[in-house]
Amino acid sequence: MKKYNYNSGPAILPETVLEQAAQAVIDFNGLGLSILEIGHRTEWFINVLEEASSLVKELLQLDDSFEVLFLQGGATTQFMQVPMNLLGESDTASYCDNGIWGSKAIKEAKLFGNVHIACSSKDRGHAYIPRELTVPQHSKYLHFTSNNTVEGSQWHFIPEANVPLVADMSSDIFSRELPFDKFSLIYAGAQKNAGAAGVTIVIVKKDILGKIGRAIPSILDYRNHIEAKSLLNTPPVFSIYVSMLTMRWIKQEGGLTEMERRAQQRSNILYETLDTLNVFEGKVDKQDRSLMNATFTAKTPELEKLFLEECNANGMVGVKGHRTVGGLRVSMYNAMPVSTVEVFCDLLKTFDRKHS
Amino acid sequence: MKKYNYNSGPAILPETVLEQAAQAVIDFNGLGLSILEIGHRTEWFINVLEEASSLVKELLQLDDSFEVLFLQGGATTQFMQVPMNLLGESDTASYCDNGIWGSKAIKEAKLFGNVHIACSSKDRGHAYIPRELTVPQHSKYLHFTSNNTVEGSQWHFIPEANVPLVADMSSDIFSRELPFDKFSLIYAGAQKNAGAAGVTIVIVKKDILGKIGRAIPSILDYRNHIEAKSLLNTPPVFSIYVSMLTMRWIKQEGGLTEMERRAQQRSNILYETLDTLNVFEGKVDKQDRSLMNATFTAKTPELEKLFLEECNANGMVGVKGHRTVGGLRVSMYNAMPVSTVEVFCDLLKTFDRKHS
Repeated sequence: MKKYNYNSGPAILPETVLEQAAQAVIDFNGLGLSILEIGHRTEWFINVLEEASSLVKELLQLDDSFEVLFLQGGATTQFMQVPMNLLGESDTASYCDNGIWGSKAIKEAKLFGNVHIACSSKDRGHAYIPRELTVPQHSKYLHFTSNNTVEGSQWHFIPEANVPLVADMSSDIFSRELPFDKFSLIYAGAQKNAGAAGVTIVIVKKDILGKIGRAIPSILDYRNHIEAKSLLNTPPVFSIYVSMLTMRWIKQEGGLTEMERRAQQRSNILYETLDTLNVFEGKVDKQDRSLMNATFTAKTPELEKLFLEECNANGMVGVKGHRTVGGLRVSMYNAMPVSTVEVFCDLLKTFDRKHS
Repeated sequence: MKKYNYNSGPAILPETVLEQAAQAVIDFNGLGLSILEIGHRTEWFINVLEEASSLVKELLQLDDSFEVLFLQGGATTQFMQVPMNLLGESDTASYCDNGIWGSKAIKEAKLFGNVHIACSSKDRGHAYIPRELTVPQHSKYLHFTSNNTVEGSQWHFIPEANVPLVADMSSDIFSRELPFDKFSLIYAGAQKNAGAAGVTIVIVKKDILGKIGRAIPSILDYRNHIEAKSLLNTPPVFSIYVSMLTMRWIKQEGGLTEMERRAQQRSNILYETLDTLNVFEGKVDKQDRSLMNATFTAKTPELEKLFLEECNANGMVGVKGHRTVGGLRVSMYNAMPVSTVEVFCDLLKTFDRKHS
C-alpha cells in the first residue's frame, strides 16, 4: 500500500515522474541503454541537460543574463561556495539569521570575509520573519533563506536592499511566483520540489562573478561550470534527469501559478484545521507561516508520541519535527495531492476530539 | 535492442542491479515509498548506508582503522579536498604525473602547498608507467592515479614510498586484488565499477587527519563526514543505493578475486586480438596496459572514422577515444560479459581484413 508521505526532503514526487524515472533506469528513451549507463557527453544526455536548464529559466521567467548550473553537494556546499566566489577577505556580506540553515550559511561565510547580521529571529526561536533589516550599502550581497524547512516560517515578501540578493530556496523553489529576476544568485537542493537528492540547482547572474582576487579551486569556481555548461566533470546524470522530469511535470500542470494555487489550498486546509484544535498549536506567527512546512506541537510530549504512533499506524510517514527542534511537522510540497492533506487533517481532528 | 556498451563512465552496470534499482524507484523494499522519496535519516536508508560501508570494507579487506565515506562531486572534488585536508601551506606532497587526471590533481594541490613531481610519463604522452620515483621523505603523502582511464595505462604494482599513499582509483576500484590497507586515502567516483554517477567513495585512515592548521569549510572537512557517518547533509540517496547493489553483486559473483579473473580474461582477449592486426595499434606499452580501458589507433583518421561508423551500425557505443587525446578506446568494466569483448574483437578482425 502506498504510504502518505509528509517528509521534509527527500520528499514526495509526482507518480508519473517516478514511473518515467524507473523506466529510464531499464531503458532510456528506447535506446537500449539505461540512463545510468549513458556517457554524460553524449547528445542524449546533453539534450536532458539543455531541457532542464531551459525549464528552470522558463518556470522562473529568467533571461539570458542568468546561468543555470546543476552542481553537487547540496545547499550546505553552497553555504561556502557562495562566499568563496563572491566575498573578498576584507569585504562584508549581510545575512538574515532566521533559522538553522541560515545560521549554518553564516558560519561558513565567516571563513571568507566579514558577516553583518541584517536581522535575526533568534529571540523567539525563529518563530517569525523580521520586518526590520539593516543592510550596509557596502555589503557585497544580502543572503536569506526563503523558506525555513525546520522552523516552518517563510518570507512572503522579498527583503528590501540595494545590494545583490542571494537566496537559499531549497525548500520552496518552483512552489510560487516571485520576481526571480531581482536575485543575483539562487540555489536549491533538488530533493523537495525540484527532484531527487544528489543535485543542486544554482542560478547565477553572470555580472556578480569574477570580482574577487581569491584563488578558487577549479571545481568550486562558478565560472568554470558556466564555461563547461555543467559538464566540468561527470555530473549526477540520474538526479538531473529526475529534476528535468519534475520540471516538465510542473510546466504541464500549469507552472508556478498553479503550484502556488495548490500550495495555498493545501496549507489553508492544514492551518485552518490546526487553529480550531485544542491539543495542537502552530509554532510560527500566522502571517509568516510556511506554505511548504507546517510546524506545530501537541500539549505534552506524551501526546506527541502517541500522535506519531497513530500516524504510523495510518501509513503516514515524515510527521516528526526536525531532530534539532522536536515537535511535529507536515511538509506539503508540489507533488502532494490535496487529499493527502485532508486525510492528515482528519486524523488531527479525531485525535484532538479524543484527547481534548 | 540492448546496445553493446563500451563507455568509459558512466558505464555498463549489471542487469540485475538495473532491475533492482528501477523497482526501488517505484517501491523501495515493499514500503509503499520510492527510494527517491524516503528520508535520509530513516532506518531504511541508514541500513543502506551501513551495508554499503560494510561492503566496501569487506571487498577491500580493511579494518576499522579505515572510515568509508559517500560524498559528492566526483574525483575532481577530491583533487582539491585531499590537499585541503592533508597538505599545510608550507608542506610538500609528491604526485605522480601519469595522465590527464593526475595532472588535474596536481594543479589543484598547488593551491594548498608545495607539489613535488615524483615521476612523469609526459615525454611519451603517458603511454607507460614510470619505474623510477623520487619521493622526498618529508612528503605528506604520495598521490597517484591507479588506472588512467583516458590514456589506457594502469599501475600493476604499488609505488614504493615511505610516506602515506593516496590513490585515485576511480576507474579500477573493485576490479582487482591489492593490499588496500597499505593506503592512507583512496577515492573513486562510482560511475565505472562502483555504481552510477553522483557519489564518490572515499576511504580514509583516520590517523592522517587533523594534522594541519588550515580552516576548512564544514562540508569539505573529512572529519565532519566521519563524525556524521556520511549524513552531514542530504547524501545522494539513490546513487548510494545503486553502489550498494553493485557491491552486493560483486560479492555474490565471487568478490575481487573473480572480478580480477574476469578482467584478465576480457583484456587478454582484446589485447591478443589487437596485437595480430595491421590496421590497429595499441597506444600503451604492453606491460602497463590497463585491464579496464584499452586505447588504440587505426592507421589513418579516415579509417578511425569509418570504424566508428561500423561500431555504430552494430549497436556498439562508447568506442571513441577521450576528446583530449582522440583515437579509439574500449572500456571493459566489471559488469561486462566476455561475449561483449568477443563481439567487438570480431568486428575488429573483419574490419582489419577488409582494410589491410
